[in-house]
Amino acid sequence: MALDSEERFLALIDRHFPTAHPDLALGRGDDCAVLLCPDKVCLSTDLLIEGVHFRRSYFRPEDIGHKALAANLSDLAAMGASPMGFALELMVPDGLGQRFWDRLLSGMAALAREFDLPLAGGDLSRSPVLGLGLTIWGRAAPNGRFLARGGCCPGDALFVCGDLGLAKSGLLALERSGRRAVSRWPAAAAALLRPKPLIAHGLALAACETVRGLMDLSDGLAADLPRFLGPGLGADLDIKPADLNQEVINFARKNGLSPLDLAISGGDDYALLGAAPAEGLRLVRARVPELTPIGRVSRKPGLRLAGKPIRTRGFDHFKT
Amino acid sequence: MALDSEERFLALIDRHFPTAHPDLALGRGDDCAVLLCPDKVCLSTDLLIEGVHFRRSYFRPEDIGHKALAANLSDLAAMGASPMGFALELMVPDGLGQRFWDRLLSGMAALAREFDLPLAGGDLSRSPVLGLGLTIWGRAAPNGRFLARGGCCPGDALFVCGDLGLAKSGLLALERSGRRAVSRWPAAAAALLRPKPLIAHGLALAACETVRGLMDLSDGLAADLPRFLGPGLGADLDIKPADLNQEVINFARKNGLSPLDLAISGGDDYALLGAAPAEGLRLVRARVPELTPIGRVSRKPGLRLAGKPIRTRGFDHFKT
Repeated sequence: MALDSEERFLALIDRHFPTAHPDLALGRGDDCAVLLCPDKVCLSTDLLIEGVHFRRSYFRPEDIGHKALAANLSDLAAMGASPMGFALELMVPDGLGQRFWDRLLSGMAALAREFDLPLAGGDLSRSPVLGLGLTIWGRAAPNGRFLARGGCCPGDALFVCGDLGLAKSGLLALERSGRRAVSRWPAAAAALLRPKPLIAHGLALAACETVRGLMDLSDGLAADLPRFLGPGLGADLDIKPADLNQEVINFARKNGLSPLDLAISGGDDYALLGAAPAEGLRLVRARVPELTPIGRVSRKPGLRLAGKPIRTRGFDHFKT
Repeated sequence: MALDSEERFLALIDRHFPTAHPDLALGRGDDCAVLLCPDKVCLSTDLLIEGVHFRRSYFRPEDIGHKALAANLSDLAAMGASPMGFALELMVPDGLGQRFWDRLLSGMAALAREFDLPLAGGDLSRSPVLGLGLTIWGRAAPNGRFLARGGCCPGDALFVCGDLGLAKSGLLALERSGRRAVSRWPAAAAALLRPKPLIAHGLALAACETVRGLMDLSDGLAADLPRFLGPGLGADLDIKPADLNQEVINFARKNGLSPLDLAISGGDDYALLGAAPAEGLRLVRARVPELTPIGRVSRKPGLRLAGKPIRTRGFDHFKT
C-alpha cells in the first residue's frame, strides 16, 4: 500500500499509538490536543534531520524512531522530570514506502510504551528531506523540583551519569564500517543508534535536595560543560580511562585515538551532567550509585583536564 | 556577520524575543522550559516547509515568520483558546544570511507581541531545506470550555468566520505574477502571505454555550467540512457570491474561474468553521456579527452546494 494520502498516513500512526490516555482530555485528530496538567510543566523540542543527525545507511528505520524520542526524553531527564506526552512532526520525502514508516513508528512506539507516553498530536508534511520534530512535556518529581542548569559554586563536585565518548566511538565506527560496526562495537553502536534516556536517574537526582543542577550532554562535554557552568566559572576535570566504557578504550587503542579525547569531545552522549557540593556527593552517590565524579567547579574560567587546558570545542550543529 | 555558530543564532533570536514572561517559570536556554499552567492546556504543532507551504519568490522573510506563527495560532483560535506561549524549531539551510533571519524573526516577533506570547524554547539545526516547526499552547476561555470538532446534529446551522477562497485567489495570483500581485490583489495576497489568526473570534464563540464545535479551515472547505462533521453526517451548503470577498469574485471573473469553486476548494483560509443549533444562531451572531451562515448539517452523507453534489476534494498536502 502506498502512503499517498494524509488519511492513510494517519491510519498507520493510529495502528502504533493509542489515541486515549488518562493525561489527555482530548487526543489526536482535532485542531489541538487538550492536556491535563499539573501547575508546572516542562517542555522541550528537538529536530532530527537526515544527513545532519543520522544516515539511513546505518540507522535502521526503528533506530531513527527510537532515537528521535530518546533524544527528546533526555531533555526531560536533564530536568529531573517525568514525561507526560509528546507531539510529532513528520517531514516525509517521496519514495519511502509504508514498510519504512511502519518500522520507524514501531521503534518510536516501543520506547513510548516503556514510559506510558501518549502521542498527543502532530503534523505531517511532504518535504525534500526526511526529518522529525518532536515536542515533549513532563511533570516534576514528587518534591516539585526541576533541575535547571548551573547554580554551581566554586569547589562543587561535578559528576556524570552515563557514558562519555561511547556514542562518538559508535559514530566513528559506523561511519567507517556501516552496520558491520554493530557486531564489532555493540555498546558503542547502540549508544549512537538507540540511546537510553536516563529518566529514572534524573528523577532520583531531583529527589536529592543537595544536587545543584543538571543538563544532558548532546554536543560533547567540552561544549556543554561551559553552558552548564555559566559565565565566570571554570572546571578542573579529573577523568581517567578507567572511568570510561571499555569499548571507548578499545576503540581508541585500535584507531590511534585518545580515549579521553573521545570522552571530552564526543557528541550524542545523552549522559547527564550534574553538580553538588563536594561534601554532599556521598549522599548523592548513595541514591544514584551509577554516577561518576569527573572533577570540580573552579573560580578560574576555562576547562582543564588533569591541569592542562582543554582546547577541543565539542560539536556545533552549525559548523559544516 | 555570518550566522556561523549556534551561539550567534541564539543571540539573534534573543534580540527579537524577550526571555522572561509571567507564564514562564523558566524560559529559553535550558534543557526544557518550565511553563506555569492552568489545569487544562491545549497544544498544537505545525510545519512550514519551503517549496511545500511557501516560496521565497513571493514570500518575504517577514511573511514566512508571520505565517508560521499565524497558522499555529489559528489552531488555538479553532479551540476557542487563548495563546500562552510557543516553541520554534528552525531548519537552517546554507546560504541565508543574517539579514534574512533578522527579517523572518521580526515578522514572527511582531505577531507574538500582538498576543503577548513568549518564545519559550526550541531547536536549531542545519538542514538541506528551509523549514519551521512551531508548537503552541494555550488556555481555555474564562468558562473553561474548549471547542472541539463535531458534536453536530442534523439540522444544525453551519457558519464561518473569515474569508473563503481569498487565500487561494492570492496563491493563484502570486504564482502567476509574483510580488506584483500584492498591489493588484491586496486582500487576496495578504490572506495568503499574512493571515490573521482569529483568536478573538474563537474566544467569543467559546463563550457562546450554544456553539457545538469549531475548527480552522486550512485545506479548503470541501476537505475540512467532512472532518468537522465526522462519519455519518453530510451538509447542504448555501453559499452565494455575495457572501465572498469582492476580490474573490473579481479574481474569478478575470480568470474565468467560479468564485464558489475557489471558496469551496481553496486552502490556507484559516477561517473558522462552526456549528450551532439553527434556533441558536441568532444569539451567536449577536456575539460575533462577522460570522456568515453557510448551510445546514444533514443526515444525508456527502456535501451539496445549492442541491448539487460537490466533487472537489480540497487540498491534500500529500498529493504531489
